[in-house]
Amino acid sequence: MPAMTELPGAGVTRRHFLEKAALLGGSAMVMTALNAWGAGIASMTSAPPALRGSGAGHKLLILGAGVAGMTAAYEMSKLGYQVTILEARAFGGGRCQTARKGFKLTELGGEEQECKFDEGQYLNHGPWRIPFCHRSTLHYTKTFGIPLEVLVNENDASYARFDTVKGPLAGKRVRQFEVRADMRGYTSELVAKAATSGKLDTGLAKDDVELFVEYLRGEGYLENDLSYRGTEGRGYKVNPGAGIDDPGPGVPSTPYAFPDLVQSKLWRMVQSVGTFDQQHTMFQPVGGMDRIAKGFEKHVGHLIKYNAEVERIRQSDGGVTVDYLDTKTGKRSTISADYCLCTIPVSVLRTIDADFSDTYKQAMALLSYDPVCKIGLQMKRRFWEEDDAIYGGHVYTDAPGINLISLPSSGWQSAKGVLLGYYMFGADATDMSGNTPAERTAIALDVGQRIFPQYKENFETSFSASWHLIQYNLGGWGNWSAEARKVAYPVLNKPDRRIYLAGEHISYIGGWQAGAIESAWHQIAQIHQRVAA
Amino acid sequence: MPAMTELPGAGVTRRHFLEKAALLGGSAMVMTALNAWGAGIASMTSAPPALRGSGAGHKLLILGAGVAGMTAAYEMSKLGYQVTILEARAFGGGRCQTARKGFKLTELGGEEQECKFDEGQYLNHGPWRIPFCHRSTLHYTKTFGIPLEVLVNENDASYARFDTVKGPLAGKRVRQFEVRADMRGYTSELVAKAATSGKLDTGLAKDDVELFVEYLRGEGYLENDLSYRGTEGRGYKVNPGAGIDDPGPGVPSTPYAFPDLVQSKLWRMVQSVGTFDQQHTMFQPVGGMDRIAKGFEKHVGHLIKYNAEVERIRQSDGGVTVDYLDTKTGKRSTISADYCLCTIPVSVLRTIDADFSDTYKQAMALLSYDPVCKIGLQMKRRFWEEDDAIYGGHVYTDAPGINLISLPSSGWQSAKGVLLGYYMFGADATDMSGNTPAERTAIALDVGQRIFPQYKENFETSFSASWHLIQYNLGGWGNWSAEARKVAYPVLNKPDRRIYLAGEHISYIGGWQAGAIESAWHQIAQIHQRVAA
Repeated sequence: MPAMTELPGAGVTRRHFLEKAALLGGSAMVMTALNAWGAGIASMTSAPPALRGSGAGHKLLILGAGVAGMTAAYEMSKLGYQVTILEARAFGGGRCQTARKGFKLTELGGEEQECKFDEGQYLNHGPWRIPFCHRSTLHYTKTFGIPLEVLVNENDASYARFDTVKGPLAGKRVRQFEVRADMRGYTSELVAKAATSGKLDTGLAKDDVELFVEYLRGEGYLENDLSYRGTEGRGYKVNPGAGIDDPGPGVPSTPYAFPDLVQSKLWRMVQSVGTFDQQHTMFQPVGGMDRIAKGFEKHVGHLIKYNAEVERIRQSDGGVTVDYLDTKTGKRSTISADYCLCTIPVSVLRTIDADFSDTYKQAMALLSYDPVCKIGLQMKRRFWEEDDAIYGGHVYTDAPGINLISLPSSGWQSAKGVLLGYYMFGADATDMSGNTPAERTAIALDVGQRIFPQYKENFETSFSASWHLIQYNLGGWGNWSAEARKVAYPVLNKPDRRIYLAGEHISYIGGWQAGAIESAWHQIAQIHQRVAA
Repeated sequence: MPAMTELPGAGVTRRHFLEKAALLGGSAMVMTALNAWGAGIASMTSAPPALRGSGAGHKLLILGAGVAGMTAAYEMSKLGYQVTILEARAFGGGRCQTARKGFKLTELGGEEQECKFDEGQYLNHGPWRIPFCHRSTLHYTKTFGIPLEVLVNENDASYARFDTVKGPLAGKRVRQFEVRADMRGYTSELVAKAATSGKLDTGLAKDDVELFVEYLRGEGYLENDLSYRGTEGRGYKVNPGAGIDDPGPGVPSTPYAFPDLVQSKLWRMVQSVGTFDQQHTMFQPVGGMDRIAKGFEKHVGHLIKYNAEVERIRQSDGGVTVDYLDTKTGKRSTISADYCLCTIPVSVLRTIDADFSDTYKQAMALLSYDPVCKIGLQMKRRFWEEDDAIYGGHVYTDAPGINLISLPSSGWQSAKGVLLGYYMFGADATDMSGNTPAERTAIALDVGQRIFPQYKENFETSFSASWHLIQYNLGGWGNWSAEARKVAYPVLNKPDRRIYLAGEHISYIGGWQAGAIESAWHQIAQIHQRVAA
């Protein structure tokens, strides 16, 4: 996921904020907005806008039955709008997909893959994580009663191996807690010793320096002399157990040398706290991410025309007209509506014959889409649990095209498991995706084998997806450059006459389902406000 | 749980270790031992000893159907031993209990409590966590097919509030990620600036100093000028969302001032890595910890005499004789066996009429037991999830008698929930337990209310347990002082003639089910070795 690093100073004032909120609807909306300002993490992004009045007698055409489109359909049909969704695929959900036995995918220019996982095994090749702070997504899992389970997004006991670095730790498999404990331990030792000897000006009052050193002692598990000599938290050489010395207290592990660690660059894994959308508690729907798609479909499925590929979009003063092809029957049809919410990814939308204004088209041209690819590898035995005592979480590697290996957070201690063999974005993803599915598998297995000697002998079958090569997506997610965010994003947030855009790309939560949902909430409020006016 | 801070240098050598292992059984045991030395975290504590031969014709009497006793019964009956277990309670599991609707508990000198939680709600008032490194416990959850789910043992988004500290953060509710991000951010800034200006001697070569500063920049989310000015990982004031500025990019939060944080002592929550047994991945059985007790009972329940209170223990050269009272019928009986494995907590055992040697009795006298208490509070609404976006994890407070409030890691987004209102050990636990259940509840609610204004209005019913006041336990867990570990622990690891002790107290994993299991594994190997000799 793109980090929110482009985040500007955000000049919105409280008054401006409340005015905006009040405009949009009832008191619930204002209350939510007030909470946002008063209570820290809560925000107006946690519930759909409370819209007054009725949409009865107004036709809304939604393009795309992904999470954004179905969100809009769900909320607007409740308001009385006459909603139709055109969906190019034979199923709803957009990128919210789960590959199971029998699932088929043919990438552009590629061969057909059919998923051969065992019953009960799956890969979320699209979105796979729901962070606790994505309250909009959690609003719908709750509304639809979709059972959640924890996705272990950080596992200190998991491995890392960096090969392209210097020093004795290059090419060595380590446990992540070793690196975190040692880097923070040595750093704490440095600071504590310098601060107590007066060599480091902390800017703190004398009493506070003592407290600060107490902090460092705890943070770094320092000895009485303020040295770091390891800690049980970096793992034992032999775990403690029963008996007097077999193993009895166990055998402590020895820290890595500070310079070796510094050279290893393994500290790239170490951050004070996770970024906003990577923190605990991370969820996944029990049984697969597409449970969310199915949850929406249960309510709005009757509004969807499946296999409906949009070919032409035209607007008049009075409405929007869309020509579409039924890819199953080959029949062409036309549909008209008062307003249109278009959730087709801009990567695809700009290839469709549409009479958007030049300004709009120019803005669309400025949005780039990230290549993103994933592979699922079914293993006949959960060797990472059984042999290595690693339960979920990610294995980090700097091997080209892999980025991370992620271990499943479901079916604990069961026989088989599907692990994520790579999750790659950017140029490396383009390279990896240039391979056939069999070649991708071979590369993933080679890298995995370097980390887990049990990898290849346990491999059974794979399924891979490259979103930039998937016909109706042509990219994993929209990626705004700082410049495009400034000049193009505001344009695409406004309608082009009667067409509004929505989707993860029309938000500051790009690449996440929450972005799709919240953009839909935002745009339906705009449409409803216009209809009511 | 007692931390492993008393851990000595552990002088065991590889050769000694393998000799011990080879003595005890077949090649599987040696293999496990070899793995322990070769592969880091794996240890001989991950599977029961591979014992050769048969125990047929030998009677083994086990006192206590807790996790240790049932482990021994399960393994030894498989070997052919004629096993009987005497259990004082009407159910197996020992401290491995779960309080649900109808569960009754009368503490010493107290009134009877009957649990009034709704169906499906429960409190694990005994053990509640299974860390990934407790492979022995996980061996049996796997063997018995007990479904596990993640227990969120660390939640950066959860609250903390310290009242007994100085400065502007005293009595203020904060999110834990604010403290971690800010303390590590300011520390990283200090070190990075001092290291680059040459004021801090890092002991690193010049090139490595640059890498080290790169580490600090990542760890502390430092700006280009190496200053810390906050990060999205400490939460937003308004979360990012959709739209241009409503909320659009959101509103960043402002770090606390460094001296304020230092004075707040909130950094007590911050450690480089969790201690060994507190790390990810942490599990709980789906539905309650007593699923483990039931798993064992399914296999060894037919060997258990329930309601059998041990009154007298005698040994002769040829065997062990135990008198017991059937507390249901009032009938007294006597049972004899070739060997006895006694898993009765030493806190209780030393009150029983037994002819242990003076050395043994003196050793038993040196083992202290920790007062431990817990309370479950059923809340009619999961306000911590709905209003505060906190999903599991612990809330830390320095309010007397509370220590932590822990939020449930099951039933996500469901209507009700039972949270752990306090989990206290030591002197504070004794104080708290001196109150009636109603008084305990009132104290827990008062403290909780200071952190969550929704606390009292959502409270429905409570259930509390104080292990030091429970007849057949008289303490939460054994706590060895450094001196007692040296002089008394080795004595109790050896048999007193034909009686062997087992339980969490006869291990270096005190207070955990893994200690109970591994002590049983250790002692049955000793018994079998003696029988085979």
